[in-house]
Amino acid sequence: MEKAVLITIGDEILSGNTIDTNSNFIAAELKNIGIKVIQIFTISDEIETIKNTLQSAFEVGDLIITTGGLGPTRDDKTKKALAEFFNDEIALNEATFEHLKKYMEKRGRLDILERNREQAFVPTKSLVFQNYYGTAPCMMMEQNGKLCFSLPGVPYEVKPLIKDQIVPYLKDKFNLKYISTRVVSVVEVPESVLADTIEDWELSLPENLALSYLPVGTRVKLRITATGDEEFALQNQLEDEIQKLLPLLEDHVIATSQDKIETILGEILSERKLTISTAESCTGGELAKMITSNSGSSKYFLGGMVAYATEKKIEILKVSQETVNQYTVVSEQVAQEMAEGCQKLFDTHISLSTTGVAGPGKGEDGKEVGTVFYTIRIKDKEQTSKLYMPHLERLDFMNFVSQKVIQDLIGMLISDPLK
Amino acid sequence: MEKAVLITIGDEILSGNTIDTNSNFIAAELKNIGIKVIQIFTISDEIETIKNTLQSAFEVGDLIITTGGLGPTRDDKTKKALAEFFNDEIALNEATFEHLKKYMEKRGRLDILERNREQAFVPTKSLVFQNYYGTAPCMMMEQNGKLCFSLPGVPYEVKPLIKDQIVPYLKDKFNLKYISTRVVSVVEVPESVLADTIEDWELSLPENLALSYLPVGTRVKLRITATGDEEFALQNQLEDEIQKLLPLLEDHVIATSQDKIETILGEILSERKLTISTAESCTGGELAKMITSNSGSSKYFLGGMVAYATEKKIEILKVSQETVNQYTVVSEQVAQEMAEGCQKLFDTHISLSTTGVAGPGKGEDGKEVGTVFYTIRIKDKEQTSKLYMPHLERLDFMNFVSQKVIQDLIGMLISDPLK
Repeated sequence: MEKAVLITIGDEILSGNTIDTNSNFIAAELKNIGIKVIQIFTISDEIETIKNTLQSAFEVGDLIITTGGLGPTRDDKTKKALAEFFNDEIALNEATFEHLKKYMEKRGRLDILERNREQAFVPTKSLVFQNYYGTAPCMMMEQNGKLCFSLPGVPYEVKPLIKDQIVPYLKDKFNLKYISTRVVSVVEVPESVLADTIEDWELSLPENLALSYLPVGTRVKLRITATGDEEFALQNQLEDEIQKLLPLLEDHVIATSQDKIETILGEILSERKLTISTAESCTGGELAKMITSNSGSSKYFLGGMVAYATEKKIEILKVSQETVNQYTVVSEQVAQEMAEGCQKLFDTHISLSTTGVAGPGKGEDGKEVGTVFYTIRIKDKEQTSKLYMPHLERLDFMNFVSQKVIQDLIGMLISDPLK
Repeated sequence: MEKAVLITIGDEILSGNTIDTNSNFIAAELKNIGIKVIQIFTISDEIETIKNTLQSAFEVGDLIITTGGLGPTRDDKTKKALAEFFNDEIALNEATFEHLKKYMEKRGRLDILERNREQAFVPTKSLVFQNYYGTAPCMMMEQNGKLCFSLPGVPYEVKPLIKDQIVPYLKDKFNLKYISTRVVSVVEVPESVLADTIEDWELSLPENLALSYLPVGTRVKLRITATGDEEFALQNQLEDEIQKLLPLLEDHVIATSQDKIETILGEILSERKLTISTAESCTGGELAKMITSNSGSSKYFLGGMVAYATEKKIEILKVSQETVNQYTVVSEQVAQEMAEGCQKLFDTHISLSTTGVAGPGKGEDGKEVGTVFYTIRIKDKEQTSKLYMPHLERLDFMNFVSQKVIQDLIGMLISDPLK
């Protein structure tokens, strides 16, 4: 299998200002075509550091992809490092300059600045892949059959360059093996117990299959990856192994192919023609966003209400003032009434509600940070649960709770006789 | 300044399955106490690779922090690599085992499995920092005055370990310099034009100040970091430089200290005692989530509606059926009516609305993917804009649009005579 090394260049990652999402995207795309990322380096924008890292990367990888360090501002030194590393020189590339002019014109910027013109300078030995979503071109250098691509760092420029140009190029260039992956989602089993339960199965997996444990909240994703020459055979092999695995896990499996919780939910709701709505307090819109991040969600997600202020819970979701007075706004009873009001407001089969304290400040009713009640209502059945996660930061809390609510809903739907 | 190297261990990052958020968190925390992360390595869970990377890291850094590779499952080899690298042996640490037992008991798991007991085995020379949110302890090894911390990989275990234990330890151990940072947010100026505009100012910055350009959507964040011995002097120095910078940027600056768009908004709304609500279609809850991710947002964010289905826009937000028929649901007119209905529903000073097509499928009315109309309504003034971002993936689109709406609102509020 071809091996790739990714190099992320830029102080904004090292300083903790920006999360590196490019490496994740690129690694997943390469994996799909059977190229394995074996190392990722994040380094600063210094010529010597870049050259040394290219050296290390070429020692272990067949393919290097760098991102970042190609912008028009003065903290970008990648191109110079590339030219020096490959004993090349930088010169104006006419085709790139023409492309850049058109790109700027299309955006109504007729005054091409010297800084932009500089972006059309590339190492003379490089093959240029034009960037249709930004001003920095992508360059490829070759050395002893090994390839080095240099991309800009902006994620929405990286994505189309990788998907539309580099992946097709690599598929053509290398004689790649097939990769097939399945993800089995196991809930309510601690990772250590799970590992013990499936140990014998794991040890007996064929050599071309690899297993990983990926915990997400209270779910553990078992990712099984098969590598081989025939796509169809791999799929069969994976299916066989999963059929052996399932009896060991009883009713703890909520999905056996899709990975993302919102996609698993989407498949079930679409198949059963069920509609859903949300009424959120402490999750602040994250739950709705998670559900709608699945494309095609407009078929089943009719709408959501973020009722942040207590009076909005009362006015719009018809939570009763007495319930709030008696039990406080962060309570089982309010969660229930929110779900009921939500189901009526949006007229859906299913409604979900959350009420809690995301922190870091205490809630208005003095409830502890990290407390949340959530109700799942399916037709006229409902289930309310409590979580207490005081150690999570605000955003992590919003995300964790939303994951858990959807995960519980899937569990209920799978075992629900109402289908 | 002390230099740190981060090492992320785990195939889940290399395979593109998980985004590495730990490095971002750790780098930002270290930066706050004047420790600079100079490299981040992401490597696979193999003993030789881990040892080689530790070797490289010790050559350039004073401090190494590894995350990952400490779970109870069989793909974790970090501890063995640590022991080999430091010529040490692994043995049961009694205090750690006691801590682990208590941890498990508290969670009602009285059956300590062999796999869990193994987690209390650590290199004998290591100093253990107990993990209060998981079962893998954090270990510190020391070599020639250089430190190596090994943490588990789960983000909500990493955060408290770093914040509550490691940062205080490092502050005590090293004689650290002060770091002070300001972020100036510039909108509606392309990065290349901005760089030209402030070139002279940038070149004249004192040596202890560093500048970075961080583009986020259509905003460029200029981050200025000062390093020195006296906190107060640094703050004055930063303020002086920002006062020189501001006249060059005219009315393109929307903030000069806060970094996150939701925090900038929160400060303005709190100060002016304004309330806000949202009515979202294509952003699916992301806009509400972005606003509520600022702690303290309950003071000004009263609520939001995700009106995904057209009939819910009509029923709940009182968009007129005629408007939808005449202009389609993705239109300037519907955005306006959504904002108006939202303002009434939640009774807020400000309301925001979005209607568009996030893709990848086309909208029900056939509008192109990537089209969005959004309205910002402040009291009885309103402004509707259109964006066309066909190259963004669904989630990036939802995020980009939400950023832009809040950014425009801030611009309007700053220049608004209504204050």
